[in-house]
Amino acid sequence: MVFAASSLSKRIRICEEFCTPYRITDGSKFKLKDINPGDTGDLEAEDKPKAKELLSLGVETLAELQERLYADDSWALLMVLQAMDAAGKDGTIKHVMSGVNPQGCQVSSFKVPSAEELDHDYLWRYVQRLPERGRIGIFNRSYYEEVLVVRVHKDVLARAKIPPTLVDTSIWEERYETFRGFEHHLSRNGYVICKFFLHLSKKEQKKRFMARLDTPSKNWKFSTADIKERDYWDDYQHAYEEMIRATAATHAPWFVVPADNKWYSRLVVASALIAALGALDLKFPEIDDAKKAELAAARAALEKE
Amino acid sequence: MVFAASSLSKRIRICEEFCTPYRITDGSKFKLKDINPGDTGDLEAEDKPKAKELLSLGVETLAELQERLYADDSWALLMVLQAMDAAGKDGTIKHVMSGVNPQGCQVSSFKVPSAEELDHDYLWRYVQRLPERGRIGIFNRSYYEEVLVVRVHKDVLARAKIPPTLVDTSIWEERYETFRGFEHHLSRNGYVICKFFLHLSKKEQKKRFMARLDTPSKNWKFSTADIKERDYWDDYQHAYEEMIRATAATHAPWFVVPADNKWYSRLVVASALIAALGALDLKFPEIDDAKKAELAAARAALEKE
Repeated sequence: MVFAASSLSKRIRICEEFCTPYRITDGSKFKLKDINPGDTGDLEAEDKPKAKELLSLGVETLAELQERLYADDSWALLMVLQAMDAAGKDGTIKHVMSGVNPQGCQVSSFKVPSAEELDHDYLWRYVQRLPERGRIGIFNRSYYEEVLVVRVHKDVLARAKIPPTLVDTSIWEERYETFRGFEHHLSRNGYVICKFFLHLSKKEQKKRFMARLDTPSKNWKFSTADIKERDYWDDYQHAYEEMIRATAATHAPWFVVPADNKWYSRLVVASALIAALGALDLKFPEIDDAKKAELAAARAALEKE
Repeated sequence: MVFAASSLSKRIRICEEFCTPYRITDGSKFKLKDINPGDTGDLEAEDKPKAKELLSLGVETLAELQERLYADDSWALLMVLQAMDAAGKDGTIKHVMSGVNPQGCQVSSFKVPSAEELDHDYLWRYVQRLPERGRIGIFNRSYYEEVLVVRVHKDVLARAKIPPTLVDTSIWEERYETFRGFEHHLSRNGYVICKFFLHLSKKEQKKRFMARLDTPSKNWKFSTADIKERDYWDDYQHAYEEMIRATAATHAPWFVVPADNKWYSRLVVASALIAALGALDLKFPEIDDAKKAELAAARAALEKE
């Protein structure tokens, strides 16, 4: 990859190619086991320093595109980030997005819903946090939790205040249908949607948990609740697979990102975002003759001072 | 109608019967011209005093049901109110809803969208105002304006900041699809949806405008902009018809209410709301034995004081 010296359009093309193997736009044949969490594409472990360098160039490119997105002010990018614990969600946001102007980027995390939130349909609180036009909105976990944690732990669904007669076995399929409609609506109104599943192996999760236990500076990241969730590993994998099968679409693709190697998964995420924004072919707004005359007059007035 | 002395369930049944002719749950064969704005069902002009009496009984029934809705706290009622100017939207809200506890009822009117609102998809601002569980939310005009005024006046669409490449002739059909999906989602999460189109004749509108001009106490309600909108009468009727055809559903019916006689249209609206809430068969939450013991202990403690 000759990334550094390339024009913006060339860089976008490289990224497009790089992320394509991980992009699911039609879930009908998708199987999670077809994707190896340890995959690193054409790169090897010894390419790690090169990968880091590439990432920093990717971050620069992303910042460049985000500036155009902001100036253009008609599109918005919604980035959905889902994963098992310790798959690297926070690190991905930090390392991929840190070059982007925070004025044009907002991260929303969703905790236990408030009483006011439970008093509305479950999608309500996520809609509130949609990014404005010209901005990147990152959902660090998202409405997809409503078919993940809520599906795996039935008591969470019981706490939602949905009238009991409306809750039956078709509820997950109904929620997929809602997400499909919601994302289609958004995409038709200027939202570019990129959904990421950081696909971690159970073995690698164990290794990362051990590191959190062994390294004092990582202790704060450890919670015994995380260990308990490991018991539900297979249920979660099943819920993820079903979700991706049901909600991947051309206008709202899922990227299933091999996540056992952080240096690689970050490259995939960065390249997917660059490809998505690049496809918009954003230009800085053009100045018309009237505006040009206005600018010339302003210059003349300043010079006269 | 022996409404006054009847049990709640009997009153609900009477209302159900009364509003049925105006309820559209399948729009495929709907034609606006099949509904006569001057229709007053089995009632005649001389029944007006009787109708007023019936309405006040209806309002009491509605208040009774709303109390149950509030206590049950899992369902919400969304009432959508659409009409041409002077069709009686404000009067309907005033006369039908004034008996209801305002704690459980909120009216939202939607004016020209703010800059922040335009910076999101067009549905965003309406979602914010959805009623909480246990409440009645009245949308005095609604997201349906996005296929009415926005359709009739193309410049309104131009002011929305949707990327131009996404705007083409299929936009109205896309919006209907969005509404269908949105309302289906809401209905599956505990929202009872009643949509009203107050169907006024052009002739009656003229009469009401004249009254606003002639009566000093009504002058404040008159705006010259309203007269201008009369030029687009046929465009609006067409847009209303298409909208009802495309978005009527069992879980989100349209009521096409003959609106040339206010005393009649209010009866139809009240009966539709009573029928909708009545169908939920809401009971006051039951007290279990533990709670009963708690209450007995509280009484004993108070008596001892």
